Amino acid sequence: MHTMHRVSVLGAAGYSGLELLKLLAAHPAVTVVAAASDSNAGKPVHALTGGPVSALSFVKTEEALATPAEVVLMAVPHDPAPALARAARAAGAKVIDLSNAHRATDVYGLTSLFAGEIAGASLVANPGCYATCVITAVAPLVRHGLASRDVFVAAGSGVTGAGRQAVEAMSLGEMHDNVRAYKVLKHQHVPEIEMALGKLGVAPRVTLTTHLLPIARGIFATITATLTAPVATMELVELFRRDYHDDPTVTVCETPEDVSLRKVVGTNQTLVGVASKGDIVVVTAALDNLLKGAAGQAVENLNLVLGLPRTTGLTHLARHG
Amino acid sequence: MHTMHRVSVLGAAGYSGLELLKLLAAHPAVTVVAAASDSNAGKPVHALTGGPVSALSFVKTEEALATPAEVVLMAVPHDPAPALARAARAAGAKVIDLSNAHRATDVYGLTSLFAGEIAGASLVANPGCYATCVITAVAPLVRHGLASRDVFVAAGSGVTGAGRQAVEAMSLGEMHDNVRAYKVLKHQHVPEIEMALGKLGVAPRVTLTTHLLPIARGIFATITATLTAPVATMELVELFRRDYHDDPTVTVCETPEDVSLRKVVGTNQTLVGVASKGDIVVVTAALDNLLKGAAGQAVENLNLVLGLPRTTGLTHLARHG
Amino acid sequence: MHTMHRVSVLGAAGYSGLELLKLLAAHPAVTVVAAASDSNAGKPVHALTGGPVSALSFVKTEEALATPAEVVLMAVPHDPAPALARAARAAGAKVIDLSNAHRATDVYGLTSLFAGEIAGASLVANPGCYATCVITAVAPLVRHGLASRDVFVAAGSGVTGAGRQAVEAMSLGEMHDNVRAYKVLKHQHVPEIEMALGKLGVAPRVTLTTHLLPIARGIFATITATLTAPVATMELVELFRRDYHDDPTVTVCETPEDVSLRKVVGTNQTLVGVASKGDIVVVTAALDNLLKGAAGQAVENLNLVLGLPRTTGLTHLARHG
Amino acid sequence: MHTMHRVSVLGAAGYSGLELLKLLAAHPAVTVVAAASDSNAGKPVHALTGGPVSALSFVKTEEALATPAEVVLMAVPHDPAPALARAARAAGAKVIDLSNAHRATDVYGLTSLFAGEIAGASLVANPGCYATCVITAVAPLVRHGLASRDVFVAAGSGVTGAGRQAVEAMSLGEMHDNVRAYKVLKHQHVPEIEMALGKLGVAPRVTLTTHLLPIARGIFATITATLTAPVATMELVELFRRDYHDDPTVTVCETPEDVSLRKVVGTNQTLVGVASKGDIVVVTAALDNLLKGAAGQAVENLNLVLGLPRTTGLTHLARHG
Repeated sequence: MHTMHRVSVLGAAGYSGLELLKLLAAHPAVTVVAAASDSNAGKPVHALTGGPVSALSFVKTEEALATPAEVVLMAVPHDPAPALARAARAAGAKVIDLSNAHRATDVYGLTSLFAGEIAGASLVANPGCYATCVITAVAPLVRHGLASRDVFVAAGSGVTGAGRQAVEAMSLGEMHDNVRAYKVLKHQHVPEIEMALGKLGVAPRVTLTTHLLPIARGIFATITATLTAPVATMELVELFRRDYHDDPTVTVCETPEDVSLRKVVGTNQTLVGVASKGDIVVVTAALDNLLKGAAGQAVENLNLVLGLPRTTGLTHLARHG
Repeated sequence: MHTMHRVSVLGAAGYSGLELLKLLAAHPAVTVVAAASDSNAGKPVHALTGGPVSALSFVKTEEALATPAEVVLMAVPHDPAPALARAARAAGAKVIDLSNAHRATDVYGLTSLFAGEIAGASLVANPGCYATCVITAVAPLVRHGLASRDVFVAAGSGVTGAGRQAVEAMSLGEMHDNVRAYKVLKHQHVPEIEMALGKLGVAPRVTLTTHLLPIARGIFATITATLTAPVATMELVELFRRDYHDDPTVTVCETPEDVSLRKVVGTNQTLVGVASKGDIVVVTAALDNLLKGAAGQAVENLNLVLGLPRTTGLTHLARHG
Repeated sequence: MHTMHRVSVLGAAGYSGLELLKLLAAHPAVTVVAAASDSNAGKPVHALTGGPVSALSFVKTEEALATPAEVVLMAVPHDPAPALARAARAAGAKVIDLSNAHRATDVYGLTSLFAGEIAGASLVANPGCYATCVITAVAPLVRHGLASRDVFVAAGSGVTGAGRQAVEAMSLGEMHDNVRAYKVLKHQHVPEIEMALGKLGVAPRVTLTTHLLPIARGIFATITATLTAPVATMELVELFRRDYHDDPTVTVCETPEDVSLRKVVGTNQTLVGVASKGDIVVVTAALDNLLKGAAGQAVENLNLVLGLPRTTGLTHLARHG
Repeated sequence: MHTMHRVSVLGAAGYSGLELLKLLAAHPAVTVVAAASDSNAGKPVHALTGGPVSALSFVKTEEALATPAEVVLMAVPHDPAPALARAARAAGAKVIDLSNAHRATDVYGLTSLFAGEIAGASLVANPGCYATCVITAVAPLVRHGLASRDVFVAAGSGVTGAGRQAVEAMSLGEMHDNVRAYKVLKHQHVPEIEMALGKLGVAPRVTLTTHLLPIARGIFATITATLTAPVATMELVELFRRDYHDDPTVTVCETPEDVSLRKVVGTNQTLVGVASKGDIVVVTAALDNLLKGAAGQAVENLNLVLGLPRTTGLTHLARHG
């Protein structure tokens, strides 16, 4: 029997942290040795997950860091992330950081594009949820020099994208049946998107408008751009399919209308659809913000760092919700 | 042209308070002279209502109480209600209290049953939302001595029934797609229901299980009881219709299946349906917790106190949501 | 007492038709003399509206057309609309057509822009729901020559925008928690938008991607464009406010983030917000697709045609859902 | 390496059928050899599941029956079930029937109660979703002779409980934010519940009122009964816990308020909570109608029939929705 790799999870009681615990509980080559949540320390993990996911109880972050582990997954806020990453590395662990603290400076863990670099890294910055969706959708256009300078993105997310919330504006009474834009012209994922796309070709200028949708999970992004020259829809679909031919986590649909949240929530897939009319191109893309947009991709990064096949422990995922 | 009656609203920025402001803005015989909200004082009312309901700005409670008014409507929590009611009455106003502070001691403003008493009252206790729904549904059974001692109620409410909330448990992320029971075997509306039904016949013992539903508005109640003797469905429907024949706010449907939240949210109606099988009777009932279950019935009480027709200012209501 | 104007409604049992009946029941200067629905003929109107909106029963279209009326409001599909409009006009009535049959050829009833022409028209083409939202949001940019050629719109609608549906794809089981794009690069409202904007300045090229949202009502549109030259956010807000200063149905918010479905569903308002960064402009806009996007604007058109103040019978509307 | 058991699924494109395919794809000891759907024959399975669950394409029922299999799982309507079960058994397969066709006559596959009988059966009738929830919640009361004759149940289900629907009444436009009762005093699961409970003690008379909730998945049931004598809440919790001590699919919560849909949807768990006051007892219970209420329990039955541990292939399930 093969050795089980020891991993710890920091910020384990947040939405992404709990998803990590659920995924890792079903992972065939990994054992979670510590699940840290300072505010839930002492409480059994199953009190928060519903089903009987794990026999562990939450511990203090300090205790988790003192527990020997090969890899530490950090689902913590951005501010404490650098110090925690340093502590984990000082203790000999590799780090996968789900916050945006290291995205500008370290290996960028967008698994569809940078698997090679990730495999050798000791600190991987797991991409943002919107960033994963938009970069996946736009990458073929940039790589093949098809898009003009400006790329316009309108995207919506379920409220879990904002983490656990105890504010009236996020109560069901206020957000039910509601849609509203937020961080207009100042979303923190834009530099990350432009940086990653810039590694594939001429970086476009990305205008991203994000929206809160009255659902718990899922990101849907609609990208519109002007092509440098007209390209027929069929050619674009063909080109996208070639680019993602080997990717077990990206599916290129027949049409932009075939992409839907219903098909991706509960899975580690990104769906993408593309169509054009003259020199206008529209790309739609969807993913589960807590799986492919966070914990699912983090497990892919974990697998790459451990030298395992990229989707180990993720193939059972299917929509059951 | 007739005189406009001057009324004030305390607690005007809560869910029920805002509904009162919207209803009173369309009321042909009433002028709102003060809308009090200590935490929103200075802010224009339209900032919270969305549409341009009112030209008023919120004021401090103290200022509202100092503004002469014929009637003060109080949509405040239970604790401060008695002192505020005393202050309002000392200033010469009649009071309609939407809290449960006066329900055990003063005129009980269930308009379908006690319109006569209400008309002469100087303090009316506006009934609770569940209480209005359940009493309306069970009253004919009690009045005609049909129900055995035990009446079992399972009822669900949209989250606005709990008022404005800034706690994680009520966030959309936690409550979306969720259903859960609360206050099992200890809901505060039970004594109110038993007291009101006791005025119509032998008071039953009421077991009420309340549930949070993943919607913003509406109460749906399902009542099951054993009949003292078998009564056919058609007879029960006939009897309910006779009892509510003159009531402009209660509709007795053909069947319990015809009752639905969709038909009542946005209106001041209670829908009721009844069916039996042998000695078992099932009654379903639905209403909008913020209208018939709170602000709508409060306006009925206001009309009765002012000597106006009971549904003045309420007849335009129709589902637009 | 003033005379009541006699009006008929065709297609009265559809979502827009029922909204018309509810609005007209509360209208102080109009009497509905016939509500036509071939498939519901004989059924009382209140069976479909929930609350007791009207004492009428639905009649066959033929019977409605034979009933003398000053104005006929048509909430029918596009195909039968021209023949029905001819029949109504032959009988001496003016027509307000909610379908898109006459939008390219007749007076375009976007009340915020064309009130003068509408007042004198005998046939008014009521605008589409997306068109009303997008034109209202983009008009100031076009009128003042600020937008470059391409205007990119991503917009989502509640499912009632597609009318009553008996197909699996629109069942709650399939559409709950779902988001998907439809009619990508081929939505029928685009020519209508370009035509209307072309009357205000140089018509832009509009790329509109429409989405189904997992809600019943409301349209939210996000518009992105390149400015001909940088304009500061504050200047844009000021300019939008000047343009809509007198308009009782358009509110320009402080920021694009202040626009939300929650504020407009159940009302006849369009909310608009605008912001810029360098030469990029983002405008958000929201309305209730069945009120300002259909029946509400149709009542405005009715009022203009009858010589009444534009918002007669609409001022009581407020969110109660 | 162990042998993989060959199984077929009939009715594989319905909601329960698709869940079966997703679960069996992750099952370590089973291979799906045929997935039958007459209306989808030829279409790849992944076109309906979203994620890449299976490489199979749907086949005609006839073809599936001609494919040798050890067990046939039938997620078909009640009418065709008996003939299909006969055909499958004639071909040498064991049958697990998710319809209600065999529940009154054959081994009743409620795994928590009848695992012994199921293990030796060649035809297992998989229980109804409401039945599983209610029987699990009431069994301890009946087994220990605690409940009086009448047991009153109010239960609500997400719309997938009614299968795929192409009717207007089940469209999102009609069912969103709606709650309504159905099959009042005539639900087909009542005889099944009374029969199963009658095997544990004196069968109670069950009055079940079922409701449609505006969600896709989940059943929540609230049971009220009179105790034969007062029993304290703590004693009841203790007794329930003893009864379900060994059951990997039933969790007895601290209180009835701790039971929630959020904790069970996406899992194969039933949550139960109980409390009393004098001689009144309230039990709440929740499960995922398509997993523990259908496909999940069917896989448990499959495991028992194949001599495998009961929860094989189900332990990875966790809420990801």
